[in-house]
Amino acid sequence: LQLRIFNLNCWAIRYLSKRRQERVQLIGDKLRWEGFDLALLQEVWSEQDYSDLKAKLASSYPFSHYFRSGVIGSGLCVFSKFPILDTLLYQYSLNGYPYMLQHGDWFCGKSVGLLIIKISGILFNVYVTHLHAEYCREKDAYLPHRLVQAWELAQFIRHTSKAADVVLLGGDLNMHPEDVGIRLLRGWTGLQDAFTEAECFEGCEDGCTLVPSNCFTVKAELLPFPLGIRIDYILYKAVSNFTVKCQELKTTKGTAPGVDIPFSDHEAMMATLHIHRQGQPGGATTTTMDPKLVDVVTEARMEVEVGLRAARRQRYWRGRMAVLALLLLLLQAAAALGTLVGLGAGQPFPKLSFSLLAFLATGVLLLATTLHLFHTMEVKMLQGTEEQMRRVL
Amino acid sequence: LQLRIFNLNCWAIRYLSKRRQERVQLIGDKLRWEGFDLALLQEVWSEQDYSDLKAKLASSYPFSHYFRSGVIGSGLCVFSKFPILDTLLYQYSLNGYPYMLQHGDWFCGKSVGLLIIKISGILFNVYVTHLHAEYCREKDAYLPHRLVQAWELAQFIRHTSKAADVVLLGGDLNMHPEDVGIRLLRGWTGLQDAFTEAECFEGCEDGCTLVPSNCFTVKAELLPFPLGIRIDYILYKAVSNFTVKCQELKTTKGTAPGVDIPFSDHEAMMATLHIHRQGQPGGATTTTMDPKLVDVVTEARMEVEVGLRAARRQRYWRGRMAVLALLLLLLQAAAALGTLVGLGAGQPFPKLSFSLLAFLATGVLLLATTLHLFHTMEVKMLQGTEEQMRRVL
Repeated sequence: LQLRIFNLNCWAIRYLSKRRQERVQLIGDKLRWEGFDLALLQEVWSEQDYSDLKAKLASSYPFSHYFRSGVIGSGLCVFSKFPILDTLLYQYSLNGYPYMLQHGDWFCGKSVGLLIIKISGILFNVYVTHLHAEYCREKDAYLPHRLVQAWELAQFIRHTSKAADVVLLGGDLNMHPEDVGIRLLRGWTGLQDAFTEAECFEGCEDGCTLVPSNCFTVKAELLPFPLGIRIDYILYKAVSNFTVKCQELKTTKGTAPGVDIPFSDHEAMMATLHIHRQGQPGGATTTTMDPKLVDVVTEARMEVEVGLRAARRQRYWRGRMAVLALLLLLLQAAAALGTLVGLGAGQPFPKLSFSLLAFLATGVLLLATTLHLFHTMEVKMLQGTEEQMRRVL
Repeated sequence: LQLRIFNLNCWAIRYLSKRRQERVQLIGDKLRWEGFDLALLQEVWSEQDYSDLKAKLASSYPFSHYFRSGVIGSGLCVFSKFPILDTLLYQYSLNGYPYMLQHGDWFCGKSVGLLIIKISGILFNVYVTHLHAEYCREKDAYLPHRLVQAWELAQFIRHTSKAADVVLLGGDLNMHPEDVGIRLLRGWTGLQDAFTEAECFEGCEDGCTLVPSNCFTVKAELLPFPLGIRIDYILYKAVSNFTVKCQELKTTKGTAPGVDIPFSDHEAMMATLHIHRQGQPGGATTTTMDPKLVDVVTEARMEVEVGLRAARRQRYWRGRMAVLALLLLLLQAAAALGTLVGLGAGQPFPKLSFSLLAFLATGVLLLATTLHLFHTMEVKMLQGTEEQMRRVL
């Protein structure tokens, strides 16, 4: 069986992404023209764009699914030539902070979507995902969250793919190939990287998917990486007695073929996989851990612990702020009560500033309490992941 | 293989549950004395209680796991005689409202926990869960959320149990046996009810787990049900060529044996299951839907649609409130600006009420926006579930 897969982070944010509608049209044209078996898309934030694509691709990809999640939507969708038998969405337990409005990851409810597809009697578990973005590589405050996501992704794949013949994962993982999260994901699931395994590769050097030659990328962010970075992946493995080989992998090179603009700020990946029945089980999930994997899990666990300490600090400070605001409010209430019953020598403060202060204190109290609760949840989830990793070790 | 299982909603809320510490001690004593193979507990909200139980049961149940989630914790924990090979937590996408402080379900991050356990070469997938409470049966505002949870629970079990030999589910489902959610869960997973299947039953009439004779239950809530209600369950099925039979099911009857207080406001369930290898696959997941299941899914879908309409209304009203607050603020800003540049005949409002109004408007704006976002997420998740159910039909 030969399977042709398309994977792209479409960068289709309403009102924010440049030339969005034009690009979505281009992506639709490409998909229709090429007739892939499976197209895995990320960052299709607008359901209208999905509906437009669906209408356009109805004849060539009769089956499709959009994963709803978060405030804006997960942005994940899939177009398929073959019937989608079932779907499941797993929302990551940690995904940035709601108050980081400028980053906005929290509002998308980042998730992994699972699709069950049967092609010529072979059962495929297809996963599509998009992990938390990396905004500053030097001081990456979101690394613990992304590691929790990578761990949850690996665990979700392990637990749901046991009856599958072939596992496929496509998505924007926001991690470089040598990052601990990718090593953790690949080590813990046994997934193979289409780029490193490809018999024939054609595209950007080193398989990069975010390259300076793309006119939509932020050049300043790519300064330390003159060739670009590789953060989008197609990963696969055979679970039962099948083997999967990547015959060919292509990426776009900064522009869409035949036009002057790229599909997105990311490059599209197009893989041709060859699946055949004979042979030994491929990358079966390891039951005894090899020492290399132990190192990776230990490294990931240490990063999670760093995040845990930070989350605990945040929780402590928000709690403290809430207590201070509460004390101030109580003090004001006591002063007001004193004036009312005529104990003090009249109201010593001007009424206006007194009321403003009370309102301010109430605002701080509510905000700090909410943040305290949020960071409590963060601590819980980081603790849970850390414990799971410890159990595995 | 004979397996003895204990299941109990422990009602161990710190500061709120009556005689908590005494009861947790009693539960620990019972578990140690009886030596079950597996104890599935819910509502162990305090990690201290879990640690105490763990220390006490270290010799009889060397393996245990506490599922962390939400602000307070999921309350779910498991004690096992046999090694726990792996765990996974799935947090339900909908779980009440954060502003319903008096109900508090939202703060627990209600989830289903999965444990993989191997006993005598038989692979068990053990699930423990606690669904959203029902506060008013006549006008149950949480029914759509509980149905989404039941659906997600069923889907999670279906997708993760494909390699298991035996599936076990224990927990407080907060649904009566004839409720649509239970029928959906059982129909869609093929799980069997230990109470109806038990060869020998001893306990409260009709297998009730919330009974008037228990001194901790709220009598007023049980008025329409003189015998009590059955909302805690042990469900099971054999996936591969195994058969599972429930030889015996017992419940406590309002008090713990030998003492004057009950373990909890719920009754404990104790099941003895008999698992043997020969025989045809038991309740294998149905591939073609029988007409009865179609009816159940249709009924559930209609309830989800009712919830969807309510969520949309909420989202609309919160949005409207936010817009009104914003308009008021803009009006105030214009008036203040007018006074500043000397256009108007001085400030016509007293400064104090003017400032208070501005603060109030800001507060309403923030609150309404947050709620609007929250209900947008609710709409998304209800839509997603409704679509999944439609696909299944």
